[in-house]
Amino acid sequence: MVDPANTVGIPVNPTPLLKDELDIVIPTIRNLDFLETWRPFLQPYHLIIVQDGDPTKKIHVPEGYDYELYNRNDINRILGPKASCISFKDSACRCFGYMVSKKKYIFTIDDDCFVAKDPAGKAVNALEQHIKNLLCPSTPLFFNTLYEPYREGADFVRGYPFSLREGVSTAVSHGLWLNIPDYDAPTQLVKPKERNTRYVDAVMTIPKGTLFPMCGMNLAFDRDLIGPAMYFGLMGDGQPIGRYDDMWAGWCIKVICDHLGLGVKTGLPYIYHSKASNPFVNLKKEYKGIFWQEEIIPFFQNAKLSKEAITVQQCYIELSKMVKEKLSALDPYFEKLADAMVTWIEAWDELNPPAGAAANGKA
Amino acid sequence: MVDPANTVGIPVNPTPLLKDELDIVIPTIRNLDFLETWRPFLQPYHLIIVQDGDPTKKIHVPEGYDYELYNRNDINRILGPKASCISFKDSACRCFGYMVSKKKYIFTIDDDCFVAKDPAGKAVNALEQHIKNLLCPSTPLFFNTLYEPYREGADFVRGYPFSLREGVSTAVSHGLWLNIPDYDAPTQLVKPKERNTRYVDAVMTIPKGTLFPMCGMNLAFDRDLIGPAMYFGLMGDGQPIGRYDDMWAGWCIKVICDHLGLGVKTGLPYIYHSKASNPFVNLKKEYKGIFWQEEIIPFFQNAKLSKEAITVQQCYIELSKMVKEKLSALDPYFEKLADAMVTWIEAWDELNPPAGAAANGKA
Repeated sequence: MVDPANTVGIPVNPTPLLKDELDIVIPTIRNLDFLETWRPFLQPYHLIIVQDGDPTKKIHVPEGYDYELYNRNDINRILGPKASCISFKDSACRCFGYMVSKKKYIFTIDDDCFVAKDPAGKAVNALEQHIKNLLCPSTPLFFNTLYEPYREGADFVRGYPFSLREGVSTAVSHGLWLNIPDYDAPTQLVKPKERNTRYVDAVMTIPKGTLFPMCGMNLAFDRDLIGPAMYFGLMGDGQPIGRYDDMWAGWCIKVICDHLGLGVKTGLPYIYHSKASNPFVNLKKEYKGIFWQEEIIPFFQNAKLSKEAITVQQCYIELSKMVKEKLSALDPYFEKLADAMVTWIEAWDELNPPAGAAANGKA
Repeated sequence: MVDPANTVGIPVNPTPLLKDELDIVIPTIRNLDFLETWRPFLQPYHLIIVQDGDPTKKIHVPEGYDYELYNRNDINRILGPKASCISFKDSACRCFGYMVSKKKYIFTIDDDCFVAKDPAGKAVNALEQHIKNLLCPSTPLFFNTLYEPYREGADFVRGYPFSLREGVSTAVSHGLWLNIPDYDAPTQLVKPKERNTRYVDAVMTIPKGTLFPMCGMNLAFDRDLIGPAMYFGLMGDGQPIGRYDDMWAGWCIKVICDHLGLGVKTGLPYIYHSKASNPFVNLKKEYKGIFWQEEIIPFFQNAKLSKEAITVQQCYIELSKMVKEKLSALDPYFEKLADAMVTWIEAWDELNPPAGAAANGKA
């Protein structure tokens, strides 16, 4: 692209936003050919690939991408016994990538997600929109009817308290999906042909005190602000449940963001989700979650963290205790999960020692 | 319009939705020529026109519209001493129309609002969308990331609790504005040229526990469910404040809807708002509200109604007591307002006697 005002004719190639402060985390079991379509937007960034399943399989990454790749053997080697907190044979393993990153921001995307088009037919730079969302404040304390007040052409409407117009720091940006919507197995079974074609041109803050179903398919967050709470739980191999990894993380991060005064946004950007997963397989993974969530959600809605909990880690350890105390009655699985939450924090702190502490031996 | 399957050639003119169950309330000081553009959508409905200001002035209503009109003399005659609760020289007087209506639903619109066009260039039937919003449930207890789950092509996403998918009854539908956005005077002064051109194709429920700035320009509600709380307060002539009538009603109805388990929606439909009001005049009306709201909003955020309050009237009387107790310190105005809230309920009950009670003498 040549800037018309650029009279010496040098091609303008501005440095991509946050190029050196953001990692892209991709969990996968196959070749990453989907990255070809993302090249104009994602190639400048560093990838952290978390290879799930058979570690001997060779994953092909399109040429020109800068990446590090971790398979199960790497995870076991790096975390030792603490590797037990990282799921296997489930995309929940992606959270290992959050832990080994040293960057401030994470964008995570599934390998069946492609570049969406906006209603004008223009390719959507999803990462750029996530970065915009994360870099401008959130407004969780009062609802703005014209949506994101900081967007060009928008503002706070009449009646919005002026004292709240500075907003709070944004910790999470949750993007949406065109084509295959993120439905549960029962809805997939009932509406196999439903496709999402509605492009809603909005970004909004999820109000304080309100929980939401966070999908991990197209998600970005500020690791410094909320990273240690982005644990995707125990799913997949050897566990009684799947497809609740991102939901679990979403409930936890929302309670903690509300407690710490941080914001969570949802809406733009869209990605194009290409392939519906098998609803029968999904039902098998989900069915316990479908009735457990009827108790888990009220649990999180009522979870109150103490005012002593002032770091994400402290909040998360408090939550793990409540999980053990209140949810173990539902199923012994939650006792195991509560323990894994603690292990996760220990592993996080080991790989991410507080500034000033001696550097830790990350392999 | 002729239905191609209609072989006998009778023009099909389906009865408009809720034709006999909805009144359109319009506060005005001028001729209602704006109704010409609304004719295809609004003419079948009955209008209640509340004439503000000089009662001797003759308001012209476009031919073909069925209406009743009340000026200040009518309000004084019908309500007697209780007319003191109805504002004068302020569009807050519109709530008198809510009170005299005998219909289940109300749509209220300002006389500087015209038919908007959607991105495809199609005229938006605002009333039809409001009716859709009111007739389908709300989901205030959990956030659905794909917005209105009951819309065609949409549903509840993965992780949405099944027990909450029936939703709750919708009491209020809050529509938005293209062209001139509903900004306060300071924002108008700072951004005199800002126009809203973003058509966001979404309807959503405002979560339980979250307040919002309700604008009275393009608003519909279920009178049976929330009517007695739709009081637009004391504004205009003889009052220290203006332009907070709809805000006041919005705070009250949201607290009461949350308490009674009713829903409030916002988003579609858009109207085209033609004319920015004078920001200098607005600033004069608003300036007390701008600092008062910094205390009023926390007051409403913390307002807890007792479990004995099971009707809208009971809730509203409880709120009026809290207003007197907690907000009078802010300004003696709130003592007067709290009294007016009680008067409003008395007048409402007089004009709307409970079913079974003897019909009351509405003039």
